[in-house]
Amino acid sequence: MTSVREVHLKSRPVGMPSHENFEIKTVELRDPGPGEVQVKNLWMTVDPYMRGRMNDVKSYAPPYALGEPMHGGAVGQVTASGDPNFKEGELVLSQLGWREGFTASAQGLQKLDPRGLPPQAFLGAAGMPGLTAYAGLLRIAALKEGDVVFVSGAAGAVGSMVCQIAKAKGHRVIGSAGGAEKVAFLKEIGVDHAIDYKAEKDLTAAILAGAPEGIDVYFDNVGGDHLEAALNAAKLFARFAICGMISIYNATEPQPGPRNMALLIGKNIRMEGFIVSHHFDMMPKYIDELSGWARDGRVKWRETVFEGIEKAPDAFLGLFKGENLGKMLVRLG
Amino acid sequence: MTSVREVHLKSRPVGMPSHENFEIKTVELRDPGPGEVQVKNLWMTVDPYMRGRMNDVKSYAPPYALGEPMHGGAVGQVTASGDPNFKEGELVLSQLGWREGFTASAQGLQKLDPRGLPPQAFLGAAGMPGLTAYAGLLRIAALKEGDVVFVSGAAGAVGSMVCQIAKAKGHRVIGSAGGAEKVAFLKEIGVDHAIDYKAEKDLTAAILAGAPEGIDVYFDNVGGDHLEAALNAAKLFARFAICGMISIYNATEPQPGPRNMALLIGKNIRMEGFIVSHHFDMMPKYIDELSGWARDGRVKWRETVFEGIEKAPDAFLGLFKGENLGKMLVRLG
Repeated sequence: MTSVREVHLKSRPVGMPSHENFEIKTVELRDPGPGEVQVKNLWMTVDPYMRGRMNDVKSYAPPYALGEPMHGGAVGQVTASGDPNFKEGELVLSQLGWREGFTASAQGLQKLDPRGLPPQAFLGAAGMPGLTAYAGLLRIAALKEGDVVFVSGAAGAVGSMVCQIAKAKGHRVIGSAGGAEKVAFLKEIGVDHAIDYKAEKDLTAAILAGAPEGIDVYFDNVGGDHLEAALNAAKLFARFAICGMISIYNATEPQPGPRNMALLIGKNIRMEGFIVSHHFDMMPKYIDELSGWARDGRVKWRETVFEGIEKAPDAFLGLFKGENLGKMLVRLG
Repeated sequence: MTSVREVHLKSRPVGMPSHENFEIKTVELRDPGPGEVQVKNLWMTVDPYMRGRMNDVKSYAPPYALGEPMHGGAVGQVTASGDPNFKEGELVLSQLGWREGFTASAQGLQKLDPRGLPPQAFLGAAGMPGLTAYAGLLRIAALKEGDVVFVSGAAGAVGSMVCQIAKAKGHRVIGSAGGAEKVAFLKEIGVDHAIDYKAEKDLTAAILAGAPEGIDVYFDNVGGDHLEAALNAAKLFARFAICGMISIYNATEPQPGPRNMALLIGKNIRMEGFIVSHHFDMMPKYIDELSGWARDGRVKWRETVFEGIEKAPDAFLGLFKGENLGKMLVRLG
């Protein structure tokens, strides 16, 4: 393998991205020098947060450069090594996704010990999306005994783990997702009250149908109407972990926030945004717990897989059309 | 004193309240029976939160009843007593404001030891508004060394105490209020950068002019544009104490929330609403600190006083026209 395909950012999207924003280029990989390794990627992830990096706006993650390959999480296998710590055939985690392979310094790579899990799980349930669910629930929302939990985007990579972690810890869980197939999936993973938001006129009433006394915790992946309904349905002293707002990522105009923000005051609600990278300290504890739950069959994960680097833009665009059940992945090798 | 005037709620306002919503009635007070006292009110408070109680909506405080006297904080003097614990001439705090006097069970009354402060201070700086400032800054916003603090409604009863408590604790304070007179007042109480929001087109820029690296803490009394600008100007891990949203209390339609709520995520912002009644445990510590600051001249307070019960509606309506510097009060005796 010396020739690989990469997905480059060709132009910045306005509103919903399209195929025109991406370009697939073939490049030659140099042989690894001292301290370098050559890696063949097996799996890459596409995630909603990448939409923000396509804009030329400074945020918590720097923007992708025009005419350069995009990047993000990937699992690969070492094919040649100039670093004695990395051997051919070993699995590595990198931030060099959106390409079939690369030659790079070994310093940015992390060896992957799959501990019996499929390697691509480390891009999903056992990776950043899973840790996002865990940290958001336990640290940001400070989940405590008896809390009723509401999750939006509940069939997605993060949301489906939030549901299952909350269930594994003994909570009542209300989940919202779009369409009958996703609702069936939510029931399969143990959600107590599954809402098909596309079929609901009154989201507040739909939440309260599953939580007559209101919700204690809201895990927000969606923003917009869902956030407004969650404020309506919140109990006193509810805690909201604000993880994502996929409903507005492609908006070309600023979107109005919830019209009921004043409920924060009377209900003493805490709303806290977070980025998983500030919570990596929780990873070892999370993987311990997750391994146990996976062994017991209390936590499972679903993947939606696209095949081949040329399908990576489709996989990414599919996130905003709600095409994924669980983690959206691209298989590269 | 057996005949007193009371302010009754005649009709519920739609939007901005007016004199038509109030009626002044003269009633006869019975002599106090066993366990009761008769009180002549000296001062009563009007506060923005009372607007919510004029609606027929369940909230943290029950609505005022139509055709009944309104109520709220008052300082009065015992004029006759059927309770051996309350003597004639003693000062009492009650929730029986909006009237010149009352006969009531002594159980709902609190004896007032003014400790050298003017008695009406216990309706403002040394009362709920002051404790609101203290609890919001110290407990909700978790003020810590080096924090830059932004306060909206900074010339009001709560806001002016937030400014001064933050200054007394050594912080840089940016305050926003409407009009030149209020800005002059903010400078007088030590605010480092005073914003006349009525004269600003770009509130975010105005905040950043006083806090070039952004704000760590926002104390919100206003909501609306101020909350949106504070999100724009917030640093990573900023904490927002959401205390009031006077900008929307009289709205007849739901008001859109901030259009930049997604900043909560990238900046890891915590936004927490609160009601002072959950923080009464902090009162003794607060009064201790306040007495010290008042003695040193580090904290002072300003009052805007209307004279006579017949002016109570004017005082209340004035809150929404920004007519008060510091605490809005009505002197009754």
